[in-house]
Amino acid sequence: MTAPIRPSRPRQPEEPARQESLRTLNLELVFRHILAAGQPISRTELATVTGLTRPTIGRIVEELLAGQLITETGIARDGRAGRPRVGLTMSRTGPAGLGLDIRADGLAACIVDLTGNVRHLAFEPAAYTGGNATAVLADVARMARMAVDAASGEQLTVVTATLAVPGPVHAGVVRTAPGLGWRDVDAGALLRGFTLHLNLPVAVDNEANLAALGELYASVNALDSFVYVSGGLGIGAGIVLDGRLMRGARGWSGELGHVTVHPDGKPCPCGSRGCLHTYASLEAILSANPVPEGASPDAAILARAEAGDAATLAALDTAGTALGVALSDMVNILDIDTVLLGGSFSLLSSWLAANARTEIDQRVLTAAWAPVTIRPALLGPDAAVIGAALTSIDQIRQHPIAWLAQQPQGSGQPLGADGMIELPEDTAIR
Amino acid sequence: MTAPIRPSRPRQPEEPARQESLRTLNLELVFRHILAAGQPISRTELATVTGLTRPTIGRIVEELLAGQLITETGIARDGRAGRPRVGLTMSRTGPAGLGLDIRADGLAACIVDLTGNVRHLAFEPAAYTGGNATAVLADVARMARMAVDAASGEQLTVVTATLAVPGPVHAGVVRTAPGLGWRDVDAGALLRGFTLHLNLPVAVDNEANLAALGELYASVNALDSFVYVSGGLGIGAGIVLDGRLMRGARGWSGELGHVTVHPDGKPCPCGSRGCLHTYASLEAILSANPVPEGASPDAAILARAEAGDAATLAALDTAGTALGVALSDMVNILDIDTVLLGGSFSLLSSWLAANARTEIDQRVLTAAWAPVTIRPALLGPDAAVIGAALTSIDQIRQHPIAWLAQQPQGSGQPLGADGMIELPEDTAIR
Repeated sequence: MTAPIRPSRPRQPEEPARQESLRTLNLELVFRHILAAGQPISRTELATVTGLTRPTIGRIVEELLAGQLITETGIARDGRAGRPRVGLTMSRTGPAGLGLDIRADGLAACIVDLTGNVRHLAFEPAAYTGGNATAVLADVARMARMAVDAASGEQLTVVTATLAVPGPVHAGVVRTAPGLGWRDVDAGALLRGFTLHLNLPVAVDNEANLAALGELYASVNALDSFVYVSGGLGIGAGIVLDGRLMRGARGWSGELGHVTVHPDGKPCPCGSRGCLHTYASLEAILSANPVPEGASPDAAILARAEAGDAATLAALDTAGTALGVALSDMVNILDIDTVLLGGSFSLLSSWLAANARTEIDQRVLTAAWAPVTIRPALLGPDAAVIGAALTSIDQIRQHPIAWLAQQPQGSGQPLGADGMIELPEDTAIR
Repeated sequence: MTAPIRPSRPRQPEEPARQESLRTLNLELVFRHILAAGQPISRTELATVTGLTRPTIGRIVEELLAGQLITETGIARDGRAGRPRVGLTMSRTGPAGLGLDIRADGLAACIVDLTGNVRHLAFEPAAYTGGNATAVLADVARMARMAVDAASGEQLTVVTATLAVPGPVHAGVVRTAPGLGWRDVDAGALLRGFTLHLNLPVAVDNEANLAALGELYASVNALDSFVYVSGGLGIGAGIVLDGRLMRGARGWSGELGHVTVHPDGKPCPCGSRGCLHTYASLEAILSANPVPEGASPDAAILARAEAGDAATLAALDTAGTALGVALSDMVNILDIDTVLLGGSFSLLSSWLAANARTEIDQRVLTAAWAPVTIRPALLGPDAAVIGAALTSIDQIRQHPIAWLAQQPQGSGQPLGADGMIELPEDTAIR
């Protein structure tokens, strides 16, 4: 019997492995080993772990040093006993990433270097809900300029900017951001316009996605698969699976706030009914007793809950249960066993997590033999802006060759007397 | 300011690009180009598209021909005008994949060859619900033996078997399959035990996942991202994103049947309440008027709906609405714009899809500017067993070198007089 079935999906056949690309492959291999080492690593050890010859390692290391991607620092001890050697590690000067975040309560900017360290973090409180998009982005551009200046004062060159926004984004356009009152705002084009003189590539991405990436990078115990829930005036989720952000087919995954909790529930601003948003947004939790204009809603909820205010505690119970129903749907669909409560939810997690866990234990098919963990996120409200900055620098981490190619001619040599080259701290011992 | 952020996740640094692996890379590159071509491709054209030299192509093609991975067939016309050349295409003899499926209504077995064509498809009706797992798997082994015999009669060598089961699987163990009444059944070990003499590697996987892969491979219009909904005595989903199955952190993704439609709904066999299963399983749709023991439930629903039976039509309306609520959650979380209704739902889709679409249009945040498509799946009830067989052969498609390494010594030469070598059909024209 023969039924016509199309052959296996034609995968994009790769380029042939040619000799000329070996140079790039080997350079990126060495760079990744230095990055992954987490501590200074010697040329000798690099030769051992990569299987490349010592002269090849030497040549590549010179190129990476000249391009300010790595630096010589102190002494690395090899795994085995032996004489101490000069260690190589990621550079704290050279390329840097810029992150920008529009929150309901203000603007944030962040610079990270190649080592992943935050070198600059600024926040300006303001009420942006319902704000004019052009005015908001002019303010963002001002934050960006200050951050670029701060970076250059530390011998860092910002390579790209990533802007976090609370809504689905397509090609730089924010399709809808109910928290800001935006619809179809071309934030990428506006921000590029306001920062022309900086000559910066600008990317725009969903804040829950970027916050999830921030948590991924910052995770101390190598969390590989988790859902980051961004709670605030809106509720979104960033999904990380096997160490990668799962963006969905068009980048609009994780709309947890609009998962149905009760099909006949209250109307939601999105046009549907009974969404999680109608139970667990800060506005919903506060609905019995709204805060005055300009006051911080999460701080108000926290204060009332700690004071034992009955209406607030009841609203938090309802929110926690609804969150648990929506998270159960998410876990049943995605099979992810760790939920990080982020944004305002990280502050409120002790009031939300118990009810959420009750629902999850009952509603997740696999929970009986594989319990789900719910805990507060690590980076708090800065997760998105830090994630945005790390996303910006990650391009160079993934493809250092792109940075080297942009360097002045003769990048095989130190860059000269422009103050941009970090001198080895210890060159006496080889 | 400096806050400690761990450096970018240490990616597993790859092996260095060494000369000895170029042979494998180039062989797999050429193989993939022949696979992706979809029609016979000549040695000359292969040299053009891969950038490899004509002698390298010649050597690799000889190796692939000798290993029965490809065959010479008729004449390929190059893109440009020129003399006709011998075409190369996937072999219809040589390695084959075996798929096996345990359904509520019987057992199925399927053989596919390297071209992706179904060469053997067998079904034995039986009622397996509540059946003894050992007895069921002994029956499966018998089906496997017959399929291997049928394959060998067509000069095909089965390289591996993949068994589809209706429930979450871990390392060959079916954790729970409510439709079969199974819990913690080591289906992999049992099936290996019953097929020892066949010396076959055995894999076990979720049927919705395998059916989704079947649809992916069979998709004529290169559908890249979709959700396959497997409707029947249970309801599961297989999620395909960017051409890859999204299995979740532990392989248990897509438990759509246990997504909450109504938090206070009817009790579900899983222990929760108001799951989609309680509204849209065949059992739920039939609840007003169950079918006699042994009758086919989907056929009964279909007949009653076509006869205009009011209770059945009302139950289908309820099921369609509930399906729409659960699918909206799925789309909001995953951002996937195409839903394929499979299994029994493919037969019932004209009664389910309208209500489901109404819910999706209202409940999916991005539906206003990016509509979601719902349509019946292509392969019907055979999707899972075909997907299982294609999964089995896909290992060889991805890594032909593994097959070549298993061939008798001197695989650079034709295999000799064992009838296993396909002679070129046309060697006159080069």
